[in-house]
Amino acid sequence: MSYNLSAVGGEAFYDSDNNLVSFFFVLYSIAPGSTIQQKIHDQTCFLKSTMPPVRSPFTRLASSSQCSARCGEVATLHGTIKTPVFMPVGTLATVKAVTPENLVDLGAQIILGNTYHLFIRPGHELIKKFGGLHRFMHWNGPILTDSGGFQIFSLQELAKITEQGAEFRSHLDGARLFLGPEDAVHIQEALGSDIMMVLDTCIPYPANRDEAAKATDLTGRWARRSREVQSKTGQLLFGIVQGGMYPDLRRQAAEELIDIGFDGYALGGLSVGEPKELMQEMLEATVPHLPDDFPVYLMGVGTPEDLVEGVYRGVDMFDCVMPTRNARNGMLFTSSGRLVIKNSRYREDQRPVDEQCDCYTCRNYSRAYLRHLFQCREILAYHLNSIHNLHYYCSLMAEMRKAITEDCFMDFRQAFYSQREQ
Amino acid sequence: MSYNLSAVGGEAFYDSDNNLVSFFFVLYSIAPGSTIQQKIHDQTCFLKSTMPPVRSPFTRLASSSQCSARCGEVATLHGTIKTPVFMPVGTLATVKAVTPENLVDLGAQIILGNTYHLFIRPGHELIKKFGGLHRFMHWNGPILTDSGGFQIFSLQELAKITEQGAEFRSHLDGARLFLGPEDAVHIQEALGSDIMMVLDTCIPYPANRDEAAKATDLTGRWARRSREVQSKTGQLLFGIVQGGMYPDLRRQAAEELIDIGFDGYALGGLSVGEPKELMQEMLEATVPHLPDDFPVYLMGVGTPEDLVEGVYRGVDMFDCVMPTRNARNGMLFTSSGRLVIKNSRYREDQRPVDEQCDCYTCRNYSRAYLRHLFQCREILAYHLNSIHNLHYYCSLMAEMRKAITEDCFMDFRQAFYSQREQ
Repeated sequence: MSYNLSAVGGEAFYDSDNNLVSFFFVLYSIAPGSTIQQKIHDQTCFLKSTMPPVRSPFTRLASSSQCSARCGEVATLHGTIKTPVFMPVGTLATVKAVTPENLVDLGAQIILGNTYHLFIRPGHELIKKFGGLHRFMHWNGPILTDSGGFQIFSLQELAKITEQGAEFRSHLDGARLFLGPEDAVHIQEALGSDIMMVLDTCIPYPANRDEAAKATDLTGRWARRSREVQSKTGQLLFGIVQGGMYPDLRRQAAEELIDIGFDGYALGGLSVGEPKELMQEMLEATVPHLPDDFPVYLMGVGTPEDLVEGVYRGVDMFDCVMPTRNARNGMLFTSSGRLVIKNSRYREDQRPVDEQCDCYTCRNYSRAYLRHLFQCREILAYHLNSIHNLHYYCSLMAEMRKAITEDCFMDFRQAFYSQREQ
Repeated sequence: MSYNLSAVGGEAFYDSDNNLVSFFFVLYSIAPGSTIQQKIHDQTCFLKSTMPPVRSPFTRLASSSQCSARCGEVATLHGTIKTPVFMPVGTLATVKAVTPENLVDLGAQIILGNTYHLFIRPGHELIKKFGGLHRFMHWNGPILTDSGGFQIFSLQELAKITEQGAEFRSHLDGARLFLGPEDAVHIQEALGSDIMMVLDTCIPYPANRDEAAKATDLTGRWARRSREVQSKTGQLLFGIVQGGMYPDLRRQAAEELIDIGFDGYALGGLSVGEPKELMQEMLEATVPHLPDDFPVYLMGVGTPEDLVEGVYRGVDMFDCVMPTRNARNGMLFTSSGRLVIKNSRYREDQRPVDEQCDCYTCRNYSRAYLRHLFQCREILAYHLNSIHNLHYYCSLMAEMRKAITEDCFMDFRQAFYSQREQ
């Protein structure tokens, strides 16, 4: 059967030297005897020769002789991060309830900003006028920005995904917005973050294989487009391995990203409701396929136990809202487990939150005082609780770095769990 | 006509050496031909001889040659305060949205705690178990506590005042509570504040002369009872001059308090809705009748202009929720007037809140960033705004102390106003 091509649509992308790097097209036809124009094909083509070779920002310093845990450094425009590292989340150009000085004091090395939120408010162009996110928010250490993908999918029921990108509505005023992989890079370049993330699609859990495969393929094509439009700013760009809960898709996604070549590799679409064992299985099915001389980042994870299990399986970087969000809800992390500060048993408790902790909060305030502040909804409660929880997370990472350096990570891991069982 | 005394009620008060210091009684009678018992008289009697002579905690260091402004020091159990001084309000054992370290950095010398709020939550007995308010809240400088009077009257529509004290309901759970002048002293002794205030009655504005006179007399009797039950803890106790807007009542109240003898004298019942001129008139009608070798405290006042006018008229101490409350509402004080941070004109404003200010907020953050935080309701907005406003108030006091020391207070006052007119 013969089809007459009736129309073509698409877009071509050029690098800063005006070389064609990729193009995307859609073909339409009118079938014989019909008057209706139909989309019959779309494709993205890449001219691979334009890809520069990638030099890793990661330096390995120590490895466990008994598991995949490792210790190293990631070099960025705003300094070097010791890994494994936890990144406090600073969604709207502030890690909620603490100052940048507090972050330095409690041991944070790098923070995370949310591209989606900053794009909507106050806007990346405004931040660019201020010389970038660092100067705008008075944080001079490294910043990683996510791509906005996760927020678009999690905040937007009506987000529409096309080959070009994501159409969605602002959660603030309902305005129609569009974000393509190129936009995500340009916005993050305007923000001036040290580590940028490619725009990815989010695969719900559970998802069938076909659904997961399609979203993973699209993430791969978007990753390539992202890498190609990146300017030479020195900012790092990380690819994101999707693949749902399908080990072969994860492996395939990892290979595709390695073929493109990124400064680091992230695992996305985990901790989305699946059992812990399944998340760990996915880690084990993915991390070994990533180049071991590049940083590995497990996105949006997680509990203290998740961090220990992630490091055990070779992860270098983590982020999660849990320490700050739980702090604002009165849930505090301690070496022996979780503590709910509003509990009446703490009414007259003169002890600090964690007797093993040397954070500002534990050095100066009792459980009874923190309970009083929390019951009164005093702003200082959220401040002191956030400092404690972030310090707990950052200290946990420091302890793991020490254990790996001394090659006693397995002992550390055992002690970590046995303290919680007491 | 003859009345048969049918009953007597009352209470007697003894000092720590078991000497009778005062008693209070009520007489009831039954009129001839009646069966109804009627209250016909009540009285409080004091045995003046038990009053110890008072040594002032105040040392005058400098005075203006052109007005009543003066500079000095007030010695307390937790150190010496330079006056004139502004006291940030820390209602619930925290100055809202800042840490004790922030307070020291921004120049606060002494803070205020609210007896009413602490009595209700977490309770003075709990705080006493922690060794007092200082240790409980991690503030090692001087603390002044109010007596709870103002809060009982302002928060409680149904507060009932008797000769004994105030009956009221908790604003939290509606529980029936009672606070007499002796209780107010005992609670403040348990809190361990450096400066305690006597329980006073609050006179609404406007109030007729009779109403004002009665409340003023009662405040005087309560003041005497307060002084008499005070333990020898070294805590200072200040009397409160009421009198409504009647200069002769104010003068009479001052004389009564001086007769009892306090460590300092406060002006209560001002800034309750009266015109500014009337408040200043009351200051002028009262301050000259107070002993000039004792500290003078204007309670709950006020705007920056009020502080300048108060100092001009001889006031040494001030407190007000304005800098912290306005900060949380996005209203910032500057040398050239007030600034509403959410105003769209600050969207891209890279300047600090006040170019003449060297507070932490102004050194590190732009108006645009503070506007962004405020629009997003980020906790950091309240923190940074509170630091700025408190710093503004404390710096204003420091500038006044300097001007008085250099005997150029009138020039300072003129410059203060002309900056605001620009």
